[in-house]
Amino acid sequence: MLYLVGLGLGDAEDITVKGLQAVRSCSRVYLEAYTSILTVGKEALEEYYGKELILADRDLVEQGAEEILKDADVTDVAFLVVGDPFGATTHSDLVLRAVHSGIPYRVIHNASIMNAVGCCGLQLYNFGETVSLVFWTESWRPESFYDKICKNRTAGLHTLCLLDIKVKEQSIENMMRGKKIYEPPRFMTVNQAADQLIQIIKRRREEGEELGMTEDAVCVAVARLGAADQAIRTATLSQLASCDLGGPLHSLVVTGRLHPLEVEMLRMNAEPSALQHLHLMDQ
Amino acid sequence: MLYLVGLGLGDAEDITVKGLQAVRSCSRVYLEAYTSILTVGKEALEEYYGKELILADRDLVEQGAEEILKDADVTDVAFLVVGDPFGATTHSDLVLRAVHSGIPYRVIHNASIMNAVGCCGLQLYNFGETVSLVFWTESWRPESFYDKICKNRTAGLHTLCLLDIKVKEQSIENMMRGKKIYEPPRFMTVNQAADQLIQIIKRRREEGEELGMTEDAVCVAVARLGAADQAIRTATLSQLASCDLGGPLHSLVVTGRLHPLEVEMLRMNAEPSALQHLHLMDQ
Repeated sequence: MLYLVGLGLGDAEDITVKGLQAVRSCSRVYLEAYTSILTVGKEALEEYYGKELILADRDLVEQGAEEILKDADVTDVAFLVVGDPFGATTHSDLVLRAVHSGIPYRVIHNASIMNAVGCCGLQLYNFGETVSLVFWTESWRPESFYDKICKNRTAGLHTLCLLDIKVKEQSIENMMRGKKIYEPPRFMTVNQAADQLIQIIKRRREEGEELGMTEDAVCVAVARLGAADQAIRTATLSQLASCDLGGPLHSLVVTGRLHPLEVEMLRMNAEPSALQHLHLMDQ
Repeated sequence: MLYLVGLGLGDAEDITVKGLQAVRSCSRVYLEAYTSILTVGKEALEEYYGKELILADRDLVEQGAEEILKDADVTDVAFLVVGDPFGATTHSDLVLRAVHSGIPYRVIHNASIMNAVGCCGLQLYNFGETVSLVFWTESWRPESFYDKICKNRTAGLHTLCLLDIKVKEQSIENMMRGKKIYEPPRFMTVNQAADQLIQIIKRRREEGEELGMTEDAVCVAVARLGAADQAIRTATLSQLASCDLGGPLHSLVVTGRLHPLEVEMLRMNAEPSALQHLHLMDQ
């Protein structure tokens, strides 16, 4: 049996009882280590589960699936994913490989940012399409997420923006030379995300484009959701460009039309000067 | 402290370790009993937690919040919600009342249908706005969810349809007479949901309207997600009108544009005759 176990969002104790039982019963346990992170590392999880964990980086999951699935028809193997197992494409791929190899699988769900973001006070059924922001490079500065946010806003919907994570990335130089030297992990902050959005808005304003959102858009920044030191901050986009929410992971929500009950929830964590913008939309 | 604890989607063991510790430490534990259900009842949960549970129906949560929050500034109170605590509006209300009364609160997240539906193979970031279907009455047959589904489809997005739950409802007759007699609980099935959609499509076709979806739309029906006997069925809308997925809870997804990897996942649980429709969209 292949168990796909969601670890939730905070620390070792955010696993479900069912998930913990599965982990403890498995002969091999992999920890997916490139699409998200908890506030604790591999060692803390190993101690809590009483199990050795095998780190599964992108290479292993995408090219070494046979290794993960080896003997899983006769023994139990667990594949641990921060959040819920079906946040990222690559895990569908692992499931399909299991099924095609005649290996049964079972999913043990948990919270992911996709639903836990509701704790900021915005109603989940008022969210439109989720977008991803990637670290811009000199030559690659995609803007499609901005258009999706504007489309959601036009429809009155909020947008959850998932922010880029770079774990075990090679520099282009090292990749060209075939050197397996990896850059330190990078996690996009809310500031960086806000800065990207503001750059897009400025450029489009200069080009005379009609703007679907401006620097005054009410946004909600969340950091380390589900952890004891989680942070939630409601502010305008320009305010978020200079706020400090501490360590990873960060996510950003750009609001659409706000319901009075949503406004009241947002006020709890609002920058005082953002309240006027909240008030303006409070109808 | 007020703990809002998500119970996840299956049975008693889908609570997180952190959630279970909170429940066991609280002096009063309420079980929200009107927006969703697990596959096990109150007694099974009480036995598993080793705690007596107080059923919280809509009246108690919406009008008796003071009772729930009583002494929560000096003692710990838990409020248990199937899925994640922030699926339903009313729990924002409870949080706001706590905050206004100076009672600290903590959320312990868990899976909800909003993210767990990803296990059917459709990517969560390809979903648009979520819709709710309510039981039609003779005089009230809202259709706005149909328009939202079509809007999502036009944008290439999938739609999660949450299906109505009626727990502890009074008949209009009993309500008029002030009799506290309640109807048996009702849970909308996928068949009923498909039937409503087909009725809307037929009516609009007769009126010559351009259709955003037809009876051939590829849909995914899910039942008892996260439970040992969960069911996932990919079929056309008309096929779903006559399928039997067993007991509650049911949800329905109307697909938008399908990615090849999504198609491959959907094939695993597809009605053979629905495969041609999947194939048609496989590009």
